[in-house]
Amino acid sequence: MRRFDCDYMAGAHPKVMEALLRTNMELTAGYGNDAYTAEAKTLIRNAVGMPDAEVFILVGGTQTNAVAIDGILRHHEGVLAAESGHIAVHESGAIEASGHKVLTLPHYSGKVHAEDVAHYIDTFYADETYQHMVAPGMLYISQPTEYGTLYSLKELETLSCVCHDHDIPLYIDGARMGYALAAEGADFTLHDIARLADVFYIGGTKVGTLFGEALVVTNRSLLRNLFPLVKQHGALLAKGRLLGVQFAELFRDGLYYEIGAHAVRLAMELREILRAAGYEIVIESPTNQQFVRLPNDVIDKLRESISFDYWGPRGESSSIVRFVTSWYTTDEDIAVLREKINEGR
Amino acid sequence: MRRFDCDYMAGAHPKVMEALLRTNMELTAGYGNDAYTAEAKTLIRNAVGMPDAEVFILVGGTQTNAVAIDGILRHHEGVLAAESGHIAVHESGAIEASGHKVLTLPHYSGKVHAEDVAHYIDTFYADETYQHMVAPGMLYISQPTEYGTLYSLKELETLSCVCHDHDIPLYIDGARMGYALAAEGADFTLHDIARLADVFYIGGTKVGTLFGEALVVTNRSLLRNLFPLVKQHGALLAKGRLLGVQFAELFRDGLYYEIGAHAVRLAMELREILRAAGYEIVIESPTNQQFVRLPNDVIDKLRESISFDYWGPRGESSSIVRFVTSWYTTDEDIAVLREKINEGR
Amino acid sequence: MRRFDCDYMAGAHPKVMEALLRTNMELTAGYGNDAYTAEAKTLIRNAVGMPDAEVFILVGGTQTNAVAIDGILRHHEGVLAAESGHIAVHESGAIEASGHKVLTLPHYSGKVHAEDVAHYIDTFYADETYQHMVAPGMLYISQPTEYGTLYSLKELETLSCVCHDHDIPLYIDGARMGYALAAEGADFTLHDIARLADVFYIGGTKVGTLFGEALVVTNRSLLRNLFPLVKQHGALLAKGRLLGVQFAELFRDGLYYEIGAHAVRLAMELREILRAAGYEIVIESPTNQQFVRLPNDVIDKLRESISFDYWGPRGESSSIVRFVTSWYTTDEDIAVLREKINEGR
Amino acid sequence: MRRFDCDYMAGAHPKVMEALLRTNMELTAGYGNDAYTAEAKTLIRNAVGMPDAEVFILVGGTQTNAVAIDGILRHHEGVLAAESGHIAVHESGAIEASGHKVLTLPHYSGKVHAEDVAHYIDTFYADETYQHMVAPGMLYISQPTEYGTLYSLKELETLSCVCHDHDIPLYIDGARMGYALAAEGADFTLHDIARLADVFYIGGTKVGTLFGEALVVTNRSLLRNLFPLVKQHGALLAKGRLLGVQFAELFRDGLYYEIGAHAVRLAMELREILRAAGYEIVIESPTNQQFVRLPNDVIDKLRESISFDYWGPRGESSSIVRFVTSWYTTDEDIAVLREKINEGR
Repeated sequence: MRRFDCDYMAGAHPKVMEALLRTNMELTAGYGNDAYTAEAKTLIRNAVGMPDAEVFILVGGTQTNAVAIDGILRHHEGVLAAESGHIAVHESGAIEASGHKVLTLPHYSGKVHAEDVAHYIDTFYADETYQHMVAPGMLYISQPTEYGTLYSLKELETLSCVCHDHDIPLYIDGARMGYALAAEGADFTLHDIARLADVFYIGGTKVGTLFGEALVVTNRSLLRNLFPLVKQHGALLAKGRLLGVQFAELFRDGLYYEIGAHAVRLAMELREILRAAGYEIVIESPTNQQFVRLPNDVIDKLRESISFDYWGPRGESSSIVRFVTSWYTTDEDIAVLREKINEGR
Repeated sequence: MRRFDCDYMAGAHPKVMEALLRTNMELTAGYGNDAYTAEAKTLIRNAVGMPDAEVFILVGGTQTNAVAIDGILRHHEGVLAAESGHIAVHESGAIEASGHKVLTLPHYSGKVHAEDVAHYIDTFYADETYQHMVAPGMLYISQPTEYGTLYSLKELETLSCVCHDHDIPLYIDGARMGYALAAEGADFTLHDIARLADVFYIGGTKVGTLFGEALVVTNRSLLRNLFPLVKQHGALLAKGRLLGVQFAELFRDGLYYEIGAHAVRLAMELREILRAAGYEIVIESPTNQQFVRLPNDVIDKLRESISFDYWGPRGESSSIVRFVTSWYTTDEDIAVLREKINEGR
Repeated sequence: MRRFDCDYMAGAHPKVMEALLRTNMELTAGYGNDAYTAEAKTLIRNAVGMPDAEVFILVGGTQTNAVAIDGILRHHEGVLAAESGHIAVHESGAIEASGHKVLTLPHYSGKVHAEDVAHYIDTFYADETYQHMVAPGMLYISQPTEYGTLYSLKELETLSCVCHDHDIPLYIDGARMGYALAAEGADFTLHDIARLADVFYIGGTKVGTLFGEALVVTNRSLLRNLFPLVKQHGALLAKGRLLGVQFAELFRDGLYYEIGAHAVRLAMELREILRAAGYEIVIESPTNQQFVRLPNDVIDKLRESISFDYWGPRGESSSIVRFVTSWYTTDEDIAVLREKINEGR
Repeated sequence: MRRFDCDYMAGAHPKVMEALLRTNMELTAGYGNDAYTAEAKTLIRNAVGMPDAEVFILVGGTQTNAVAIDGILRHHEGVLAAESGHIAVHESGAIEASGHKVLTLPHYSGKVHAEDVAHYIDTFYADETYQHMVAPGMLYISQPTEYGTLYSLKELETLSCVCHDHDIPLYIDGARMGYALAAEGADFTLHDIARLADVFYIGGTKVGTLFGEALVVTNRSLLRNLFPLVKQHGALLAKGRLLGVQFAELFRDGLYYEIGAHAVRLAMELREILRAAGYEIVIESPTNQQFVRLPNDVIDKLRESISFDYWGPRGESSSIVRFVTSWYTTDEDIAVLREKINEGR
């Protein structure tokens, strides 16, 4: 079975695993007060070009979003997000559990438009009853989005401008950031992300580590007292060095970018195979997630040897499915997919 | 430097690490929907003698306490705990962050007395204003306690009786359960724990795994909808199988008990060295944590080659310190300690 | 100035005020443990035809919604509501502050459709990832709605059916219930409301009292421990008898229905005046709120002698405004409005 | 029956009630945006000598404490309070429900000692693990305390100093402030309270109004966005002017001070009657609450004609009881008490 279900099906990239093994018997202080975590933080600060940024590495994405958003917002504020955003849909109400509303915006293949952000805030404060409503307190976007699409540098700059003109911070969920950076036509770097966002995170779980998301706070006044906040959220890892060891490995010699490039290259091949076979690519994604419309009988046949994600019906006899590549996807996986697709025609 | 600071300074027990390495490149479903997690749950159900118990493995201890307590309590209820209990002191208010008060009881070397529990509840309901106060909704104890002490089987039975007679559940924090089970004179088993507690957890982080705590719900009506609750708390691990792989390794061939026995044996040797050297053992702990009173000059000298935890001053010229052994403590560590202690006299 | 801005501009209905005055110097127990509150509860139980219902009178509407919804929902659940619903828009995030998401449904002049409720729930559980999402745990509707519209008995029955078939409770916000009961063509009674809803409240603030909303729990298993929950929400009035005195007055001799009938009669006259003058009634409301489209110059002119609520622009030169009648609106108010409207043509 | 149970047994002081009646049929804007509330705020600012203070009048005491404390504290902070403090005991966990721990200090007849505050904070930050614990983020005291005792001006100054030296704000719960100001030997004024506290409230419910507590924020940076915070807590009164009308009446011509003086004068008479009869005054309270030890048979006999609060047993044959006077206590009430006490000897 060749598996394209999601990008967190394997353990860690072999080099990351080796680093964990190599350091396994060392004894260090807990809670991230160790040399590996210090190294990882320095490497990340360098990678984003912000020597003064605060970096705190957490275990998972929902956790990181919940800690950051809870920490940034004041009581009466909510977080603006695309209605397709992870925090709006797939976090079991973690944001609300910390007391905050997710204020949804229309999405365009997973992206929000700057005009919609501006319009929401302007309309909000123009309403005489605004003090009875939840104030827009920050903007959440994901790069790449939940649909694999990307904001261009220009779009990021516009969103950042709109946020700062309206006096709210911009937060970027980078669970799959590695795949964004490696995308065809990606015209932004981590330096841009750090320059434009007030807070963001660089995902590890889906890009080479066993787990781990590196929260980067460039606007440090927004998130003070992060350590006890993380602890209070139950998000502090006792053996914090595990996070440090893994992220140091990702950023010491560019492994993070290699992983991204590998998965994106295979995703592009995969897309071409499906397009060439005549199937509709329903979202134009330059990253590691590909959404395709397949006839239901083709789906049934493919599933004998290939696994992927069912997304929903499209008409009577076809459906949308999602194929995902990752650092562990192989050329052989793609070759098998090609063969099966061609058989299926 | 020989290190006795705490029991979470190394990575995972080599066998656990090897299991992670061995399974690293396998592709499985996420969120604990994998065969390793299923195996681990079955092994744990067998180990506790409760084939119908629900088992859910989480990442960390504070997180596990927060999820379980939040899930069990109703809005107007708080959790009874020793004033020295981990949830009362060292969780940065995680219980309160979920809306619940920790109702403290006096502690006796870390333990609560059943009479105090009964008295609290009886007094509470005898108070005419009790509806204006936070109702005692469950009892939290730790086995072993934060001071390394143990409840005997008889004490556990009495606490369980008192709880159930007063219609509240008993929850046991077993962050160091492995060291309790292996303690000299321990007269209880995991079967007893499961029989007497309504909910408890078996700690992995301090007993052989990289991380992981196995929550066991024997009274399933208390904690329904655990999956979304865990997710909502940001506590759901994407690569859930990492938890399954590790706990399966701990419980497949008795590794969990070996680890406990090893650390306790060395702790007993350590205690004898210190006692023989004339130092006061300030708490009689049969487990892997030892609290000793040392002259301050001895402490200074020892610290050149040995690390341990400073607990607080005791008089002008001496202090209480804590030595902790773990699965990674070696006979050689103990030999060095012996040599340094003897030098120090 | 004749005022039609909203229905909470005056104090209490003279009879209610007189009852407060009459009882002012009596000494009674606090927190609702007094004879007036007992009488009010009995009168309300009789009025709704449910001798076993629990009744708890709170101070305000947002408070009542927050207490009831927080008490009913389990952690992983949210409340379904029209996107125009009060809890979704105008409660400053009170529902989210207690940890719960408001799951919005499309609205049709303020009402939700039973099919949309059923579809939401069915789609939710059909989604493989539903455990990562907030479960629909109850339905909130308002009768009358925020736009003055009404659910018919048939619609209420269908909504109640859909809820109970899908195993969620139905909650009705009756902030303006008195004006619903008195509406032209209203084919339901408080008995119907009590039979179809699991929990609802009968509003006093907008229907004759200084403040006060009577929460009625017909399905008592949903909201146990209401007293400490109310206290915990800061919603328990020390001099609880003030609520009892007022509601007893409303329900002892039918004053509640008289108030409703009075305001609705005047609202119907008001509507006819506006319609006859050629202005568009933009929502067909049979209750005490009337939404009308007026030319902007007419608005400016009217405002010299009449106040009302500005709702928003409609086109370049006209706007939607809201006129509200209440128990304190007089025939003379309507006469002045008629005169001014006719002048304005 | 002469009633000394508590100080919230009657409605409002006749002058306050008359003001409500006088304004009852006026139509005003809601939510405190009315002229009476504006007047009340100005009067209160003048009374406390702080023209720039923010004043917000809420309905009840628990509610006011919950809003203020939730608004002031950051996530990782708790509130220091006497273990006998209202927020620590009698608010059904309202503070914890908003996510914050109450950090208890020893009490001395209801008061906290400045040294204990300083010691708590110093010890806290000296602990290496302080980031895992709830930080002391503010100090809560009540004036008078729950036991009727008073802080002297000197004590208030010292507490204020300790707080500000340790960089935490001082919050004063003034539910019975009127009785403190009128106490024998009270050497402080509302100007002192405002100068020394960062935030405090002046209670109305127990001192002449139907309900209402005036929150005064002298350090405005601590509590921004109070309006939506109040609304979110379900604490915003629709007919906000009811609060304004009542507080304007209390502070327009000194009624607040008259009420305090009246009740305290009668409390002092009551104390003398009991002391002269040979009964032990167990707490030296100069305010309207008096705690006395009475033989149980005396209690039984007295209760035939006089009601008061049972506080708890003291030995085999006597108990502590509480007598409370208020604005509605009469000289005749005291005369009857004198007669019955003298009969009972």
